[in-house]
Amino acid sequence: MEKNPITTLDAIRELTQSFPGPDEEAIAAARLREPQLTKPKGSLGRLEEIAEWLAGWQGKHPAQINLPRTIIFAGSHGITSQNVSAFPPEVNQQMISNFQGGGAAINQICKVFDIELKVMEAALEIPTRDFSREPAMDDGDCAEAVAFGMSGPDVGVDVLCIGEMGIGNTTASAAICHALYGGEAADWVGPGTGVEGKELDNKIRIVRESVILHKAVLVDGLEILRCLGGREMAAICGAIIAARLSRIPVLLDGYVTCAAAATLHSLDAYALDHCMVAHVSAEPGHRHLLEKINKIPLFDFGMRLGEGSGAALAVGVLRSAVACHNGMATFEEAAVTKKS
Amino acid sequence: MEKNPITTLDAIRELTQSFPGPDEEAIAAARLREPQLTKPKGSLGRLEEIAEWLAGWQGKHPAQINLPRTIIFAGSHGITSQNVSAFPPEVNQQMISNFQGGGAAINQICKVFDIELKVMEAALEIPTRDFSREPAMDDGDCAEAVAFGMSGPDVGVDVLCIGEMGIGNTTASAAICHALYGGEAADWVGPGTGVEGKELDNKIRIVRESVILHKAVLVDGLEILRCLGGREMAAICGAIIAARLSRIPVLLDGYVTCAAAATLHSLDAYALDHCMVAHVSAEPGHRHLLEKINKIPLFDFGMRLGEGSGAALAVGVLRSAVACHNGMATFEEAAVTKKS
Repeated sequence: MEKNPITTLDAIRELTQSFPGPDEEAIAAARLREPQLTKPKGSLGRLEEIAEWLAGWQGKHPAQINLPRTIIFAGSHGITSQNVSAFPPEVNQQMISNFQGGGAAINQICKVFDIELKVMEAALEIPTRDFSREPAMDDGDCAEAVAFGMSGPDVGVDVLCIGEMGIGNTTASAAICHALYGGEAADWVGPGTGVEGKELDNKIRIVRESVILHKAVLVDGLEILRCLGGREMAAICGAIIAARLSRIPVLLDGYVTCAAAATLHSLDAYALDHCMVAHVSAEPGHRHLLEKINKIPLFDFGMRLGEGSGAALAVGVLRSAVACHNGMATFEEAAVTKKS
Repeated sequence: MEKNPITTLDAIRELTQSFPGPDEEAIAAARLREPQLTKPKGSLGRLEEIAEWLAGWQGKHPAQINLPRTIIFAGSHGITSQNVSAFPPEVNQQMISNFQGGGAAINQICKVFDIELKVMEAALEIPTRDFSREPAMDDGDCAEAVAFGMSGPDVGVDVLCIGEMGIGNTTASAAICHALYGGEAADWVGPGTGVEGKELDNKIRIVRESVILHKAVLVDGLEILRCLGGREMAAICGAIIAARLSRIPVLLDGYVTCAAAATLHSLDAYALDHCMVAHVSAEPGHRHLLEKINKIPLFDFGMRLGEGSGAALAVGVLRSAVACHNGMATFEEAAVTKKS
């Protein structure tokens, strides 16, 4: 991991308190142009909202998408020793090789939409500790992983798709959501890569008992992230923070990405305003989670792969929104009669 | 319009009785490959279904998208004399010029996804008759428009996006749906390009009274199309028929496109199996209509522009589905451990 001055979670708490808002001037410019375009007012629906949202968070009008990037954050989870996943942990390294070799789903989707793909291994060789027994990370480890994630969105990137890969991380996500929002553990646990029957019951039990075990120290989102999350999830928080500070709009992928993001949302209800959720996953906890963080996903395709696959898929919609807003003729240019 | 041996609606009725089904061999090949790809089974959700559906209806595995085409069918409606639209009928010709000049929303979306755009004017200079007084078309006119639409999907096109443009055509669509499915006229009437208040009440009244007026002759979908539809809507039916016969999967756009398609669905419940609905429109009747024709849209973006804009937007999803299915590594190729 790269060096970064942020070495404690308190430094990150402080950072989230000085998040910039959207660029009001860019939003005003988008709102001025939109009704001049050759279409009935509002008839492009969410595409119009997206064009304005991109302008606001890129801090310029018209918004541009010249360098979209997908980052897959990968991490290893000690909780896998509790038999919570349908795939063994060695798949982590195998899938990294698959990403590098161009053979994964995300490689194909990035190619379709001309998106740069970056894989960031959050100390993949060092699993977090088994959170059913002890906190997954200590303060310094977790902060280091956040700082690592902050190095992901380089200057020049104009849309950031965030995804993840890590055997065991839907268990961590369920535990984070259960800790953040309560309810029953079963509300937040799903099959992940494919557990069912007794193994699913075991996964639910692990989540329930782990949240009880750490209850006393789960005082805020970052403590929840530290005790129950993984390094790739902490890195996701870092990428979201850095994107906010660098004026890069973000597309969040599925359950794991959103569970990580939710820890920031719990610190500050506006922390995810520069983030759009690309899709609602088939993992059942994701739908509940989106209600909690007030996000309406673009797609509902029953996907549950991770890797940023849903986020990358949404780049086509964002490109279309920008193309319409920037490229359409105005009523005046096209000599089209306005509404009577 | 081009010449075509189909000169009566009976000839079209006959044609719909010999529709081919999907290619079972291509489907079997898709089902054989899918579980070998490096992802948990089913984890790409609807993308997996799309890859299989495309193979089945293109009649080959793997499916390819090399020449997607959007056709905008344009028509003029006599019903506009009843003050049912927020825009005057001269906008038809102005928007044709805008399409040709590259200034419309559909031009931008087609550019994003590398889709060929074709505009087909269904005798735009001759409005249909005012269906609140007499049938919109006679049998020969309607058949001619269907035949015209059949010339749209040339050989080589591998995905066909169907859209439309025609001031007054949401009124025609509402009348068609009310005639096909009953209910109240108000269930099927919406603002279209933007009517509201008294004008919306007037639009509802026109739809209700027109369906009553023609009731005796509305014996099947094609009679409903003839009495209440427009030439562009008849041409849409022709394009759907020709695509089926030429093994071209179809993306249907919004309310008007689907209302036209519904007249075929009413002749044969399998007639639209080679069609996917791209999005559910903000025009409220569209959601009811999709239930009637048993289609689950890909997007719910509050769009209501027409022009094929929603259909073209979906090409990115289809391209991604094909890219994943065709381009991903298998577990064996990537040496990734399968589910334990």
